Amino acid sequence: MFEERCGRAQALMKDAEIDWLFVPICTDLRYLTGYKAIPLERLTLFMVPRDGTATFLMPQFEVSKLEREGYSVYYDVCGWEETQDPYGLLTEIVGRTGRGKIAVSDTLWSIFLLGMQKVLPASTFVSATPVMNELRLRKDQQEIDSLVELGRRMDRVVADVADLKFAGRSEHEVGWDIFMLVKEHGLAPTRSGGVASGPNTASAHHMGGDRVIQEGDPIWIELGQGGNWNGYIADETRAFSVGEPSEEFRRVHEVVKRAQQAARECIRPGLACQEVDRTARRIITEAGFGQYFTHRVGHGLGLDVHEDPYMVEGNERRLEPGMVFSVEPGVYLPGKFGIRIEDIMYVTESGAGNLYTATHDYVIVQ
Amino acid sequence: MFEERCGRAQALMKDAEIDWLFVPICTDLRYLTGYKAIPLERLTLFMVPRDGTATFLMPQFEVSKLEREGYSVYYDVCGWEETQDPYGLLTEIVGRTGRGKIAVSDTLWSIFLLGMQKVLPASTFVSATPVMNELRLRKDQQEIDSLVELGRRMDRVVADVADLKFAGRSEHEVGWDIFMLVKEHGLAPTRSGGVASGPNTASAHHMGGDRVIQEGDPIWIELGQGGNWNGYIADETRAFSVGEPSEEFRRVHEVVKRAQQAARECIRPGLACQEVDRTARRIITEAGFGQYFTHRVGHGLGLDVHEDPYMVEGNERRLEPGMVFSVEPGVYLPGKFGIRIEDIMYVTESGAGNLYTATHDYVIVQ
Repeated sequence: MFEERCGRAQALMKDAEIDWLFVPICTDLRYLTGYKAIPLERLTLFMVPRDGTATFLMPQFEVSKLEREGYSVYYDVCGWEETQDPYGLLTEIVGRTGRGKIAVSDTLWSIFLLGMQKVLPASTFVSATPVMNELRLRKDQQEIDSLVELGRRMDRVVADVADLKFAGRSEHEVGWDIFMLVKEHGLAPTRSGGVASGPNTASAHHMGGDRVIQEGDPIWIELGQGGNWNGYIADETRAFSVGEPSEEFRRVHEVVKRAQQAARECIRPGLACQEVDRTARRIITEAGFGQYFTHRVGHGLGLDVHEDPYMVEGNERRLEPGMVFSVEPGVYLPGKFGIRIEDIMYVTESGAGNLYTATHDYVIVQ
Repeated sequence: MFEERCGRAQALMKDAEIDWLFVPICTDLRYLTGYKAIPLERLTLFMVPRDGTATFLMPQFEVSKLEREGYSVYYDVCGWEETQDPYGLLTEIVGRTGRGKIAVSDTLWSIFLLGMQKVLPASTFVSATPVMNELRLRKDQQEIDSLVELGRRMDRVVADVADLKFAGRSEHEVGWDIFMLVKEHGLAPTRSGGVASGPNTASAHHMGGDRVIQEGDPIWIELGQGGNWNGYIADETRAFSVGEPSEEFRRVHEVVKRAQQAARECIRPGLACQEVDRTARRIITEAGFGQYFTHRVGHGLGLDVHEDPYMVEGNERRLEPGMVFSVEPGVYLPGKFGIRIEDIMYVTESGAGNLYTATHDYVIVQ
């Protein structure tokens, strides 16, 4: 699988006239090799030439990890010792076949890019987007299967969340409960947080804090909590109310729900990404809340929680089968409250499917 | 505090003839502003000119976060809308005062650096190391206090670990128990893992896996587990044995322990960093295990788990009061087992202190 993906990367490199693809420890590397590690200061670089065999440049003392953890090694491995200069090895590897246009993964650290620009002054460095994002943009059946299984488990987490105690506890405490629920359902959570309550719900990216939740509070929760399955990430937002909500909450929720449903239902191959945003925005604007819908309607999702394609005004890219992205309109009334509803949709040959089946209504909790 | 740190950054910028300092969402940003967020695809950049007031360029819908989360805003704030080009704003801000040498944080994503190099072709981009690493290298009293409190709590975690059940459970399961212990002691853990057992101990960076731990297994645990206090990170490794260890284990452990102690005891202001490495390596080499001590003896630690100064052959930098780093020699016998012992030391006016007080002996567990 990985070797085949690397072959497809090389085909895209030919189209884009890219001579080398440099991939550090990141999700691009996971996509091409399966290799997982924490990105740190020692240069670790998967180097793919336009033709021929790739080379994995890595600290020598990490090389044994490849065999021990059972990676499929379809490339050459070049280890560097602690007191060795890895850039010397890098230039040797590149030198063998010339130094033209080098594409680097988006998240490569600048300290490494600056180091490469210094030792390869004749090369042109460009973003690897035309290769890696193109590859990762259309999920294959195996990836969709992982995302669907993840969705099934997330649905069970959402069901359990309704039974949690909210009033009198802090956002952090509830966030930790959800973290543990995500873990209990077999998904590796990587961060807590994601619970917004009361006026904090008016901040779209609130990550949970010390605020103690009150009776009558509006709540929204980003339920993904970093839960993942085979490396694929969940991202699901639902609204709750601690006891009966206000009339205003009900009215705004109805608008967001209608906008989210319309945006989901418009998805089909051939539609421009920006139309998904427009569909939700039109409904929210007509209801008088346009200025409070402050972010795009969605982002792609896969091995990264945000990746191409983005559902945003100005993005004329056409949807294709295999694309996976969020639909998450929100209305945020400053000083009052906010509501967001989020699903992850995948484009099929004839329309789209939703990874999640949890109700879109707000759920009353204690 | 943050404004004063920014002022010190500007003084270092003058020395290094740097015109602008660009800091994205990363620990440099936390150091200069306290601002915490997950680094994602929307350009978020703290821009410090050599003289005058800094500007925080960020998505408009995040601006309210500054007030809501109570950040001390001593800089100008410039928000960009979802459909706006942030690089246009960036060039406007830089344009006001010229475009010379621009220093960027090490972990700035390449996609952003390439974007900046495109819109500012007349600027020279360099690493911010001479500014940010110099600043962060010497911890002030407040930072040392955070690290000391973290150490106290870590000691309690280590004591609790000895009571866990190891035999018959997977590394992951034990790793999760430790994750929960870290949380119970009030430290926010961010990842599980760090338990190596049996032959996995021979891999220096093993992060925990599905292997079921056996009676008689050697174990080492990286107890930090991402636990942190005020953003400062723990990193502590100790060796364990499930039941009585082998004669060979005891012999290697004794060597590593002696090497680690000698390296700790040699630390004082004025010593070259490489001498800490040499001190441990000499003892391990004399005992015949030199080729199996495959990594440097230590790394700096603070807001990042690895940062300057590095205790490695070739680093002639002199130790100074306030420097904080690991001392962690290890011996890894391929196919057999490995042992590492790690403390975090801080340099004082006259010598050094250890953040941790847990025993350096191996602990027998069940």
